[in-house]
Amino acid sequence: MSRNNILAVDAMGGDHAPEAIIAGLDIAAERHKLAHFLVFGDEARVAPLIAVTKRLKQRCTLRHSSEIIGGDMKPTVALRLRDSSMRRAIDAVQTGEAAGVVSAGNTGALLALSKIVLKTMKGIDRPAMAATAPSAKGDVVMLDLGLNVVCDSRNLTEFALMGDVFARIVLGLPKPSIGLLNIGSEEGKGDETLNAAAAALRESPISKQFYGFVEGHDITAGTVDVVVTDGFTGNVALKTGEGALKLVGELLRRVFTAGPLAKVGYIFARGSLKRLKEVLDPRRYNGAVLLGLNGVVVKSHGGTDELGFAHAVDVALDMIANDFNSRIAEGLTAMDSALLSAKPAATQNV
Amino acid sequence: MSRNNILAVDAMGGDHAPEAIIAGLDIAAERHKLAHFLVFGDEARVAPLIAVTKRLKQRCTLRHSSEIIGGDMKPTVALRLRDSSMRRAIDAVQTGEAAGVVSAGNTGALLALSKIVLKTMKGIDRPAMAATAPSAKGDVVMLDLGLNVVCDSRNLTEFALMGDVFARIVLGLPKPSIGLLNIGSEEGKGDETLNAAAAALRESPISKQFYGFVEGHDITAGTVDVVVTDGFTGNVALKTGEGALKLVGELLRRVFTAGPLAKVGYIFARGSLKRLKEVLDPRRYNGAVLLGLNGVVVKSHGGTDELGFAHAVDVALDMIANDFNSRIAEGLTAMDSALLSAKPAATQNV
Repeated sequence: MSRNNILAVDAMGGDHAPEAIIAGLDIAAERHKLAHFLVFGDEARVAPLIAVTKRLKQRCTLRHSSEIIGGDMKPTVALRLRDSSMRRAIDAVQTGEAAGVVSAGNTGALLALSKIVLKTMKGIDRPAMAATAPSAKGDVVMLDLGLNVVCDSRNLTEFALMGDVFARIVLGLPKPSIGLLNIGSEEGKGDETLNAAAAALRESPISKQFYGFVEGHDITAGTVDVVVTDGFTGNVALKTGEGALKLVGELLRRVFTAGPLAKVGYIFARGSLKRLKEVLDPRRYNGAVLLGLNGVVVKSHGGTDELGFAHAVDVALDMIANDFNSRIAEGLTAMDSALLSAKPAATQNV
Repeated sequence: MSRNNILAVDAMGGDHAPEAIIAGLDIAAERHKLAHFLVFGDEARVAPLIAVTKRLKQRCTLRHSSEIIGGDMKPTVALRLRDSSMRRAIDAVQTGEAAGVVSAGNTGALLALSKIVLKTMKGIDRPAMAATAPSAKGDVVMLDLGLNVVCDSRNLTEFALMGDVFARIVLGLPKPSIGLLNIGSEEGKGDETLNAAAAALRESPISKQFYGFVEGHDITAGTVDVVVTDGFTGNVALKTGEGALKLVGELLRRVFTAGPLAKVGYIFARGSLKRLKEVLDPRRYNGAVLLGLNGVVVKSHGGTDELGFAHAVDVALDMIANDFNSRIAEGLTAMDSALLSAKPAATQNV
């Protein structure tokens, strides 16, 4: 079996583990006929779940691990557990047994363990978390979503590069447009870091894809395919957008149950509303990727169900099949030589 | 006529000025029977608009001003125009002729002119922009929305204090709860500035109202009544939330026009959808307030129509009627004496 078809899975991470994790693998296994899952977790709890379907029995290899990293556990504590399901799953990528790993567990621990075990890619200063979000013009990629609270202009430039490759693979776009999130679209808006990053991107090999600054409302408007920002702003923006969508869902429920006439309206509108719900379904966007590590690492939302977890597995297998990391490495080399040849301008700007 | 009933109005700011401005004053004049408007603008264009209704003729005093501050004009350029409608309207507050000012013009110019003409309140380091937004539990107050790209912990503490008074007046809440926007709710999340501000708020006279850290999704969930953040994050969060709401509106339109059955559904659902639209109508949230200046300064969205502008006028008159600035001053005194008496802890934390 090709290593590229093997995905390591942390069966014990997330609010509904291990049940939702294994049920999610069953869904993913149907979609990806060649995929095989190296599952790490408590054998007593996970084995009976795998035994449920023939497909799971064929496509999963269970490895017992004795420890679990809790949702509230500090990364420093998590790092000390050598036999946690998360650690063992990441180890499998490091040893080459698996091509990537998916976990719905503690984000801080996943990052800390991935950095220690897999290491950050050569040429990348800091990994970033990326995911897709809905927009009026189709899905968009956003990063960083929370790993790096403070970023310098080099970090933002690297995020743009990684976001570009990510959008090519996950959204299937030949030349994704890239925007830097700011509080105005005119040059000079925002702080020095943003303006230095914009200057560096204008000198970079992806300069033709660089749109310039975008604002919060541009994310859902689909003004650009890739929205680049620091982890603090990205995390707040993502959660604010999710919250606003949730609010509308809640208000829709209220207005359609407000009286007998509204309920009749609901019956007729049900089909349309269901389609809307499908488009905005957060499970469709589940699976944030930790970019910039030596290996594909995908973080599933901790509260997701099996459908959401299956989507996170889709993302991981897509990244692996498209050889994401090699393409990042190529992009980095191209960017560095461009910055080198344009050194006077670049040095001045960065 | 009491000065407290007189509002200065920049008739020339915004995309639909002066028509939408004057039409908005007509709506506001009906709601506020005692209000009088000191209107600054190009007499040749504004006088005919005021002449349209008897109410406007009675309730407006037009003062000609020869210059207009364009939407793209740099604040430094705007400061040099001594006879702009915006400048003259702010001057009227400074001389005591009016108790506040409303403009739909250039935000940067409005801030720069207000700071120079009215000055920042004693005890406030920097003004902040606040507005209300919808949540599942009613309206919430958010600040800063873009004036201060980088903030220190003292700024954030002052924003919390001003947001508290603002929420008491505009939302009518006796003891609004206050949250600091962060990327996690646990202590220690985010940067030092946020943690120092949280520590200071725990020692402050409004400590009982301080909820702690909140995340992006808490804004629309209505977890707290007042969401405090720096101007960069606040601006991005506000626009991202608005963008997400707009996306749902756009998608709703699409699903309800997708086929004959959906159109029938729309006919039955129309009443419910209209109610939803009213709740989320951005015009209901129009009127951002520049807090911390010696005078009430309200910024209307530049693209709003007369209904939206009338709402911005409502906000200004509410602030004036409730003596906003005196209450901020009282709050500042109380906070300073509390911080003074708790000095060792405060100094350590701030």
